[in-house]
Amino acid sequence: MRKRKGGTAPQLEAIAGNGLLHRRALLRGGAMFAGAISTGASLNAAAAEPLTEPEWSMYPGEVTPPLQKPSHFEAAVVRTLSNPKGEPRTQHARTPLQMLNGTITPNSMHFTILHSGIPDIDPAQHRLVIHGMVKQPLEFTVDALMRYPMVTRKHFVECGGNSAPMFSPEPIQAPLQALHGLASCAEWTGVPLSILLDEAGADAKATWMLAEGADSLAVSRSVPMKKAYDDAIVALYQNGERIMPGNGYPMRLLLPGYEGNMNVKFLRRIKVVDQPAMTYYESRNYSPLLPDGKAYKFYFVCEVKSFITQPSFGTSLKGPGFYEISGIAYSGSGSITKVAVSADGGKSWGEAAVEGPVSPKAFTRFTMPWKWDGQPAVLTSRAWDDSGAVQPLRADFVAVRGQANKVPNVLGFPNQHYNSLTAWGIQNSGEIKHVYA
Amino acid sequence: MRKRKGGTAPQLEAIAGNGLLHRRALLRGGAMFAGAISTGASLNAAAAEPLTEPEWSMYPGEVTPPLQKPSHFEAAVVRTLSNPKGEPRTQHARTPLQMLNGTITPNSMHFTILHSGIPDIDPAQHRLVIHGMVKQPLEFTVDALMRYPMVTRKHFVECGGNSAPMFSPEPIQAPLQALHGLASCAEWTGVPLSILLDEAGADAKATWMLAEGADSLAVSRSVPMKKAYDDAIVALYQNGERIMPGNGYPMRLLLPGYEGNMNVKFLRRIKVVDQPAMTYYESRNYSPLLPDGKAYKFYFVCEVKSFITQPSFGTSLKGPGFYEISGIAYSGSGSITKVAVSADGGKSWGEAAVEGPVSPKAFTRFTMPWKWDGQPAVLTSRAWDDSGAVQPLRADFVAVRGQANKVPNVLGFPNQHYNSLTAWGIQNSGEIKHVYA
Repeated sequence: MRKRKGGTAPQLEAIAGNGLLHRRALLRGGAMFAGAISTGASLNAAAAEPLTEPEWSMYPGEVTPPLQKPSHFEAAVVRTLSNPKGEPRTQHARTPLQMLNGTITPNSMHFTILHSGIPDIDPAQHRLVIHGMVKQPLEFTVDALMRYPMVTRKHFVECGGNSAPMFSPEPIQAPLQALHGLASCAEWTGVPLSILLDEAGADAKATWMLAEGADSLAVSRSVPMKKAYDDAIVALYQNGERIMPGNGYPMRLLLPGYEGNMNVKFLRRIKVVDQPAMTYYESRNYSPLLPDGKAYKFYFVCEVKSFITQPSFGTSLKGPGFYEISGIAYSGSGSITKVAVSADGGKSWGEAAVEGPVSPKAFTRFTMPWKWDGQPAVLTSRAWDDSGAVQPLRADFVAVRGQANKVPNVLGFPNQHYNSLTAWGIQNSGEIKHVYA
Repeated sequence: MRKRKGGTAPQLEAIAGNGLLHRRALLRGGAMFAGAISTGASLNAAAAEPLTEPEWSMYPGEVTPPLQKPSHFEAAVVRTLSNPKGEPRTQHARTPLQMLNGTITPNSMHFTILHSGIPDIDPAQHRLVIHGMVKQPLEFTVDALMRYPMVTRKHFVECGGNSAPMFSPEPIQAPLQALHGLASCAEWTGVPLSILLDEAGADAKATWMLAEGADSLAVSRSVPMKKAYDDAIVALYQNGERIMPGNGYPMRLLLPGYEGNMNVKFLRRIKVVDQPAMTYYESRNYSPLLPDGKAYKFYFVCEVKSFITQPSFGTSLKGPGFYEISGIAYSGSGSITKVAVSADGGKSWGEAAVEGPVSPKAFTRFTMPWKWDGQPAVLTSRAWDDSGAVQPLRADFVAVRGQANKVPNVLGFPNQHYNSLTAWGIQNSGEIKHVYA
């Protein structure tokens, strides 16, 4: 059994300015740390004994349903919709990352973007065709794919347009969900695309493939064959169960680390070709403009990024004392190796604890103990990955990528692939504002 | 780009008898493997061109909901209920493991056992008290706990009574869900119990703690303090969202690898003591009887175990050819290090591929390529963990633990902690039976 020491709590060791604490305090065993935490958080129970008996402890509870769902007390924990009546335009559903924890996004709350609604696809009739520059075009039913070798991988999916509000010249006062909610993470299971391409006998001279969905808009994107042979998956399961309708049921293309739109949902066709098709979503919508008027031709990878989820805009700190800072880091180019946290807007940094095992191209949870002294503070985070990439500081990012002309018109100017920092300004009152730092 | 070779598919390398194939075939690149797989699974698409336009590709689809749920075509993928009307006795809901994949159990389908229904707990009123042999009893609200340091861990939970039907002297013909469906796996996030015990100042002489739930039956279990200080968590989140009502909302004790009943749900009280309380569930219900009439006093750990989920009872093979064998392995005493698969009822074994990164005390997915020749086969699996434990063969297990006197009275005799093998007998017709091997 671990040894516990008595006595009063000694001073905690700081790891950086403005109250960031060394994780050692935790590892070293509790009594010391406890002294810091207990400030205000827990209550002396002596006065509360004997235990009260609330209503729900007095009578038998509810009947077990075939599928369980969250408590009605969690009714606010839902995705926010950009087009709740389903008018004939794009529908966004944003994940409430500020109310979730860990690294997995429950399937009910995985973000979705649908350009022509959610098709109601009968899996018994759906077909996936692989054709074009192949020895033998092939057609796969769902049942046929179920016989193939599968892999299981935890990966985030992020819309290229996630975090677009961060291009605003002034920080938009909105919850994390509105700023970064077009990113989620799940465990995906499916057939490596390389196996299917090999079976069809894809031509060695082919350099691209066109992936097309069975939705009525037939969303289609060109994908380099190099990526197709690297880690692309035809995914059939999401967090263990068959893929959600909004995420591409009965199957989707999964291109780990590549912008969401390329991960074609309702996948019905892969045409092996020798040049990009320059479809709408790759020639116009997802080719970010630069300040000099030029544009990126292709910008596929969602680069290294992080943000603090707790505390964040929309909550308030309840007085000085101990809090844990918690957030998400991820990178489309590899595994997170380090996350630094600052409580003084970037003047000093401490290294956060990173929850393992870390999976590549997946949400990674980081945490940092913090003792708030009740004075203004600016919390922010910065991540590194094993490709050597580091999350750029905001000044450096804006210098290269520009920002919008005004608030809130953030949709007409360079509005994609924001991966710079997010900062939360803690006021004396405990209120939290979105700030640039 | 990976090199692909042309030509006809050569003979695949066998790793064990009756069609088990070497994984190398896959790694070596596709064309060779493809030859084996394509037998019957995919169709030549040449005849199918041009692509047909199903109904759902012609018109805009459905509106995006705040919370998404599975396609109505997946309506059969649900938990099975032992007491669907909620009569005044225990309610079991079993996870359909044979229809799921990967390692995560979606929250909607995590198994649950409720002895007095699901309490409808208001998280604003719920309290957790830590008292007994402590310096200072403490009371925690949910809000208070939310300020504490948290960890995120992927762990299975399994009922000690899972797999009880395997004690039958004759193999019961039932789906995996009925045999092993009282086990699930999720990513849990919560506060390490050691931090809270330290804050309360638990007495160094305390050896046990009593954990009690807020359900009307007040399910309570004694837990060694050693486990409490090792890796116990007061869990608040399940796969990223707040815990499901049936899994203990708003908080549960999580004792990784220990039988489900000890992971007290609706946790409201931890009393630090110096001896086990010998509650109902530890003195009667979960003290497995042995053939000589003695009983285990305590049997906490769910030992190393595995079973094949696909193919399994309730499905049929559609003719000879390639199939992937896929299954789950897990151990309450550590991380899975190896899984072996046999297609000839244990005469010969091949080592399965294990999906990484492997988390300790968590579901681990294994896969094995297999070419069925249309003749009878018996598929089974066997797992090892890093504590040195190995899943026992059935004859050895039964010799020690006994089995029931008759079919189907499997509830009155040694009926807990079955961790021996499960085997599926493939008939010439492709039909699958539950067999003992």
